[in-house]
Amino acid sequence: MIGVDEIDDICLGAAILGTGGGGDPYIGGLVAKRAIRLKGAVEMLDVGDVPVDDLVVTCGNLGAPTVYIEKLVGESQPVDALRALEHHLGRKVNAVMAFEAGGSNSAIPIWVAAATGLPLVDADGQGRAFPELQMVTFGVYGVSACPMAMADEHGGTVVLNVDENWRAERIARAITVEMGARASIAAYPMTGAQLRKVAIAGTMGLSWSLGRRVRIAREQSTDVFATILEAFTGTGYNGARILFEGKVADVRRETRGGWAVGEVRIAEPAGNADDLVVTFQNENLLARSGSQVRAIVPDLICILDSDQGLPITTERLRFGLRVTVIVIGAPDIMRTPEALAVFGPLAFGLDTEFVPQEDLA
Amino acid sequence: MIGVDEIDDICLGAAILGTGGGGDPYIGGLVAKRAIRLKGAVEMLDVGDVPVDDLVVTCGNLGAPTVYIEKLVGESQPVDALRALEHHLGRKVNAVMAFEAGGSNSAIPIWVAAATGLPLVDADGQGRAFPELQMVTFGVYGVSACPMAMADEHGGTVVLNVDENWRAERIARAITVEMGARASIAAYPMTGAQLRKVAIAGTMGLSWSLGRRVRIAREQSTDVFATILEAFTGTGYNGARILFEGKVADVRRETRGGWAVGEVRIAEPAGNADDLVVTFQNENLLARSGSQVRAIVPDLICILDSDQGLPITTERLRFGLRVTVIVIGAPDIMRTPEALAVFGPLAFGLDTEFVPQEDLA
Repeated sequence: MIGVDEIDDICLGAAILGTGGGGDPYIGGLVAKRAIRLKGAVEMLDVGDVPVDDLVVTCGNLGAPTVYIEKLVGESQPVDALRALEHHLGRKVNAVMAFEAGGSNSAIPIWVAAATGLPLVDADGQGRAFPELQMVTFGVYGVSACPMAMADEHGGTVVLNVDENWRAERIARAITVEMGARASIAAYPMTGAQLRKVAIAGTMGLSWSLGRRVRIAREQSTDVFATILEAFTGTGYNGARILFEGKVADVRRETRGGWAVGEVRIAEPAGNADDLVVTFQNENLLARSGSQVRAIVPDLICILDSDQGLPITTERLRFGLRVTVIVIGAPDIMRTPEALAVFGPLAFGLDTEFVPQEDLA
Repeated sequence: MIGVDEIDDICLGAAILGTGGGGDPYIGGLVAKRAIRLKGAVEMLDVGDVPVDDLVVTCGNLGAPTVYIEKLVGESQPVDALRALEHHLGRKVNAVMAFEAGGSNSAIPIWVAAATGLPLVDADGQGRAFPELQMVTFGVYGVSACPMAMADEHGGTVVLNVDENWRAERIARAITVEMGARASIAAYPMTGAQLRKVAIAGTMGLSWSLGRRVRIAREQSTDVFATILEAFTGTGYNGARILFEGKVADVRRETRGGWAVGEVRIAEPAGNADDLVVTFQNENLLARSGSQVRAIVPDLICILDSDQGLPITTERLRFGLRVTVIVIGAPDIMRTPEALAVFGPLAFGLDTEFVPQEDLA
């Protein structure tokens, strides 16, 4: 069961998997805790425990993280989206799930689960965070984003039914802008049978484990990075290691097409190594030293503060921060040719082949 | 009954009421005729003949007229929108209606009526054309635009459920852009009882009468403008008269926010009068001579070619055309303070009070 005490750990761990995106863990946690206090703890189901005919729906928010820092999402907003989708489908949803791992978007389905009494599935569709809605294993392996529902802070809802997931992304993004850059969604409805084939299992539990490890390491003053790396042992992820330690020397960031786009330059203080330059579109996509690729999407590039191991989201990067960059190999389900076509380097306009982090080490 | 032979007359008359907007009558007519050929003639109902519990829905297109000239709306698109709305409402629609009078948007509900076998109500919500979705008497007198459905050319649909009509307009406009500036909508669902209070009755029949009069006057070489003006006698409109005759001296037009915005300057060839300058946002809004207001929205400012009396839509205005400008007093239902708040001069950012055309004569 997920109670109030678990939320901070989960949101912290999810923010590490969020690779710079997925929203702020503090803000995501606030609302999830409130929902649990009001409605009770949330039951978490393994993927294999969901009955094959049950209906699972993913919940989360779209919009600019910078806006969520200024103004919380409306309390009923994510539940409004779920109810609108149920109305359209003409049936009740049996369980909810995250579509990505991230400080905020891992908390939204917990909040919805608490508010509705539905169980939460321990899985997601990105194993990390990505900036676009079609960039999920669900879609790669044949589940449609639609019918999909969106809700604004005024109780307004929109139900989309379009056949291509990238088209759903474009329409949903335009609606999100009109909804004040803060929209809740309920999307990718799927059966328990489909869930087994298309989801990345265990990522909510992994977030929890990651967050707990960081907290305990900080309390006991043990090596926080060693314990983070250990957390990936025995999971579906392909290894984890420290890529770089240094200080933020420069951040270029602009809001373009609804995303935070830019790059951060990290310098090694002793000057013994080339700077590491990390390119991002909400999430970190590519780490380079000079012309050499050091890590590339869909592998996870996580920028953590060197002191406490706390993840730094893209919108909070700033000059002078001492950071440790870790790279985590994406699970195999995210590295197939079909998956790379949807969220590999080319999908982000990067003119570089995907190379697994193990081969770049 | 409306058959193939009636369509050209209706579309021509509706394009006169369209005051420069509402779409191209030739293109609107093409698809309506095809639907009638395939499915049969359309029954037209007077507002008072619609049973009070029946469900009436308005049909039409949103988007840039310039795009419709290049590429027709998909054949099933307006029906897809109607079906999506029926799915959401959980009931069948009993009759369809235009939301505006215009060369294209008067034809769409005829097309839907033919394709579905539903009757068409002889009314609309603008008595002319307006550029925005909330600018209808339906909304002024309490009917919500939502639930509202939209359809794209790929079979995709979106159902909106937001409480303020201006918010529905903004979201629908953003969706329209993502749908390639060509979306069909089914909106303003209302009962027969509501219909009696909020609709402008008789406008489809008036379009038909106007178009027939122009055609016959051309065939018989009688005075086309005299017969146009006569058509408004005995209707709810507040008079009609010729405002200006001249030659287009200048057109400034730009696409801004999804609309064709600009002004046309019309010079009197003999040089005995000041030029008439007509400002438009898709539709003609304000006619001035120097600083003197000659006619202003919601009264209808119609620019017709002087030779044949054919209406000239905003996107077809060009240098050198010889034109006759007529002004028609909007019906009383469109001149109340509530109505002027929604589609009076201020709603278009014009810094001028509404003055009825009768008082400006």
